[in-house]
Formats: sequence, C-alpha cells, structure tokens
Amino acid sequence: MKDLAQRVMKGDPRAIARMITLAENASPEARECMKVLHSRSGNAHVIGITGVMGAGKSTLISELAREYRKRGKRVGIIAIDPTSPFSGGALLGDRIRMMELATDPDIFIRSMGTRGMLGGLTGAVYDVVEILDASGKDIVIVETVGVGQAEVDVIKIADTTLVVLVPGLGDSIQSIKAGIMEIADVYAVNKADRPGFERTMAEIESLVELIADRGEERTPIIPVIAKEGKGIPELADTIDAHRKKMEGTKEFTLHRRRRYEAELVEIIRKRLMKMIFDEDVFRDRVEDLIDMIMRKKKDPYSAADEILSQVLK
Amino acid sequence: MKDLAQRVMKGDPRAIARMITLAENASPEARECMKVLHSRSGNAHVIGITGVMGAGKSTLISELAREYRKRGKRVGIIAIDPTSPFSGGALLGDRIRMMELATDPDIFIRSMGTRGMLGGLTGAVYDVVEILDASGKDIVIVETVGVGQAEVDVIKIADTTLVVLVPGLGDSIQSIKAGIMEIADVYAVNKADRPGFERTMAEIESLVELIADRGEERTPIIPVIAKEGKGIPELADTIDAHRKKMEGTKEFTLHRRRRYEAELVEIIRKRLMKMIFDEDVFRDRVEDLIDMIMRKKKDPYSAADEILSQVLK
Repeated sequence: MKDLAQRVMKGDPRAIARMITLAENASPEARECMKVLHSRSGNAHVIGITGVMGAGKSTLISELAREYRKRGKRVGIIAIDPTSPFSGGALLGDRIRMMELATDPDIFIRSMGTRGMLGGLTGAVYDVVEILDASGKDIVIVETVGVGQAEVDVIKIADTTLVVLVPGLGDSIQSIKAGIMEIADVYAVNKADRPGFERTMAEIESLVELIADRGEERTPIIPVIAKEGKGIPELADTIDAHRKKMEGTKEFTLHRRRRYEAELVEIIRKRLMKMIFDEDVFRDRVEDLIDMIMRKKKDPYSAADEILSQVLK
Repeated sequence: MKDLAQRVMKGDPRAIARMITLAENASPEARECMKVLHSRSGNAHVIGITGVMGAGKSTLISELAREYRKRGKRVGIIAIDPTSPFSGGALLGDRIRMMELATDPDIFIRSMGTRGMLGGLTGAVYDVVEILDASGKDIVIVETVGVGQAEVDVIKIADTTLVVLVPGLGDSIQSIKAGIMEIADVYAVNKADRPGFERTMAEIESLVELIADRGEERTPIIPVIAKEGKGIPELADTIDAHRKKMEGTKEFTLHRRRRYEAELVEIIRKRLMKMIFDEDVFRDRVEDLIDMIMRKKKDPYSAADEILSQVLK
C-alpha cells in the first residue's frame, strides 16, 4: 500500500487512477495512503471552473490545459459536471479534443460519477484534489455546473475560481446574480465572436463595477474564443496573476483552511454515515425503524434519537 | 409548541412558515412539533419537477397549481432551484404570475435558500415536505434544476417525477441522458409552439421507446404551452393517473420508504455534524486539528480518527 502512495507521488497515471478509486470507495487502504500523500500536497494551484451548460466550459478547459502544458505544467482535471464531455455527456468535437488531452501522461482527467444518498456528490472530490496535488500536478482544475449547491460548495475550496459566461444566454447573468458572483475571481466571456458579445460584456462590467464600488478589487474579465484558442494565453496569465497576488495573503490561507476543513468534514460524515447505514449491526435496526416510521408507530426524530443514543458516547 | 403543530395541521399559513423556519434551523422545539406532525403526514401527492434552466418550469408550476386549485386541491410548492422566480431569480412576468398564486391561502410557496458546507442543500427539504403534507396540502410540488446531484437526490423522494423539456435546447436531451431519464415518470414538452418542437418530440419519443423495449412501461409525453395554459389539464390528468396507478404497488411503498429514509439520514447527519463542528467543546479541538493539517503535523484522516474516537461509543 505504501508502494501505491509512492507511485502516486511519482505521477504514475495508473497508480493515480487506482488511488482515486480506493478513495471513492472509502476503503481502509485508502486511508493509509492518504496519510502519506498529505505530506506532499499543498503545492498545486487549484482552479475551480464553473458556468452554465452551453458556456463551452469543456472546450475552454481543454485549451487551457494545452496552454499550461506548453508552459511546462502538469495538469489534473476533475469533472463533476454531468453535462461535461469529461464526465460523459459529449458532443463529438468536444470528445475528440478531450481524447487528445488524455494521451498526454502529464494530464490526468477524472470524472466523478453520481452517488447515492449517503455518499453525496462531494464525497471524494476533496480526496481527489489531494491525490492529484500530491501526484505533482501543478494545476488541478475542478469543473462544475454553477447550479447545484453541492457543486458550488466544491468550488469554494479552489484557490482561484473562474466563471465562464457566454453571450446571449440571459440565464448566465441570472445565475451569476444568484450566488456565483461572490465567488468569481476571474470571468471568461467565451464565444466572443457571437452576436450579443458587447452587451454581455457591458452587463458583466457593470456587475463588476458594482462590487468594486464596495471597495473590493475589480474582478478581471477576459474575452475568449475557446474553439480557436483565442484569448487562452491571456486567460492563463490572469489566473496565474490571481494566484500570485493571493499567495501569502490571509485570504489564501483561508481558502486552504476551507479546503482541509471540507475534507475533514467529508471524511467524518462519510465514516459516521457508513457506520450507521451500512454496517450490519446498525442497518437492521435502521430498517426496523424506517418500517415503524412508515406505519406511524414512530416519527423520524425519535428514530434518530434512538440510533444516536446507540452510537454516541 | 404543541399549539404550533396544531395550527400547522389546520393549514394556517403563518404557522406553516414559522414551523419551516424552526425546522430549517434544526431547533429543539422543531423536533417536538415534527413528532406530532408525522402522525398526520403521508397523504399528499409529492410531485418532483425538474428540467434545465429556461425550460419554463416556474410558469408551468404556476399554471399547474392553478389547475389543481380549480380541482379543489390545496397546493404546497418548494423551490430549490436557484434560478427559479419562486426562489428569487425572477423575470418580471414570472414574478407577477407567482404573486397571484401567493395571495391564495390554500397555496403555500417556500423557497429553500442555499446553505453552508455543514447544512447541505437537502438539509431541511424532507422536513418541509413533511410539514406541508401534514398541513393538509393535497399536492406538494418540489422544484429543482436537473443538474446538481443534491437536487437529483431530492427528486428521488417524489411519488411522481415530471421532467420539463423544451424545443431547441439540445442540452435538455443531453441532461436527460445523463441520469434524469431513469427518474422521469412523465415528460412535459413546454413551449410546444416553438420551432423545433417536432424534432424534440421525436427525440424524446425514441428515448422512451428505447426504455419501453426493455420491458418497462412507456413514459407519457405531454406537449404544453404553459404561458397560455395549453395542455395543463392533460398534464394534471397524466400526473394524477401516475399516482393512481402507483398506489398500493411495491414501487409506491419503495418511494415512501426512500422519503422517510432520506429524512432520517438527514436528521442524523445534521445532528452529528452540528455536534462535532458547532458545539464549543468540539469546535476548538477541530480548529486545532485543522491548524495541524495545514502545517502538515497531521493528516485529515488521522484527525478524523481522533475526533471520532472522542465522539463514538
């Protein structure tokens, strides 16, 4: 097992893939490896990328990964967007673009599948970030759709959050207003050759202005045409500049803290829930209690009391 | 407190609103009330409604609620879609439509705000379903965007799941493929007067055919123009027919079981996490441990072991 952790730290793609699977299954072996890997994590620049469906996130991520490779950086990509080609819902062009990436041993792509009620989407994401970080990736990209709460929670652990917008999607501005705005460190307006581009830019600029008026720094807005690679070097520069600016600040430490806290919360949540709902000794009792809830012999809160009294000190 | 539960069961909107707030805050008073309310829940038809942004879900829900009111049914609406006018991100027309609904004392609308890492989006949803159910609502509609995992989990507790599609949004078909398909009991194709309607219908029909070939029943597809109220009575009939067909079946019991299991899981999760991360006695220790994780003196898994050993029997 220690051997696996060693291989992960050398960047061996097969070892990374196996390690991630172990972590997803929350196996006891995973724990031992994760302990070793933790000592080597914390160097990667974690970039959260979010935006509505149709914003062209996948193409943009492919191009951004390519750009980082040109700059000699190793890249990990975690897709937790169910509509992303990285995680399965692909248009042919996107898939081809992604396949090209996947042949590069210094790019590791992992999509996170959907999970059951007890697992929760975010379950293993933090572990996967930690694994890719420890494997020597300089950049770890976490891709989500900026809609679900779980997905927004995940984005919060990123060092730099990129929000991808696109002209003509009125909804994109809507969703910014609905909570994404406050987490954006950089905006990319993709498909900058499309009609409506000027208007979308103006809208975002006025939003950014609004926040700047509150005394906060102006969030950069980068126009790109991801399909043609246009604006991608500028975008990479801007993301890097954000990281450099952040480094050593209180906010940077806060982001890191949040990341480790999220990981700790998840480990504890998973262990507790697994114990209560998966282990035979509890599972039978839980099933009985649910039966009683169904038959109105018991209510869910009293049932919870009963289980907790058996579990807690 | 018992008085509050009594008032909720009489359908008093203020009491319902207060009860929901108590449940959201997981207050100890809420527990006592929820125990009483549980004895009266289980009669409502829980309808999950999901679909991509721009599918016109809010207009459709407004019209559906109106239709159910005409049929003498009381309606509860829970919006956990951040882009929904019910939960804040409104276009003017949608808002007006919703305001009209809100003046009817037999329609109760609640939007669920976003939550912190420990709360989880789904935190109080199950309680809110239970409260509205016990308040005498015949129909409880839960609205989500069919993208986030947490949102999909919520939909799983519905007796009947309606997936709203719209012509011309290639993405809508994509997202169906990506997991929504298996949970749809009824499809509504909204904006049936739009170009591309025939094609969208054909695409969904062939998807439905595909599943029917596996021996499962053909999922009904209802064209609607929600804005004009067209197709809404048929849609309501189809949803009712699904419920009637389901009643007494094994699958129906399974849905109900799932709903109470989800509620139980959430109560336990919330209580455990609140204890570990909110109570002073643990909170300080957790902060210390996160510091040690940051400084690589400890890894997250060992920190979790330490916390759990303090908490568990």
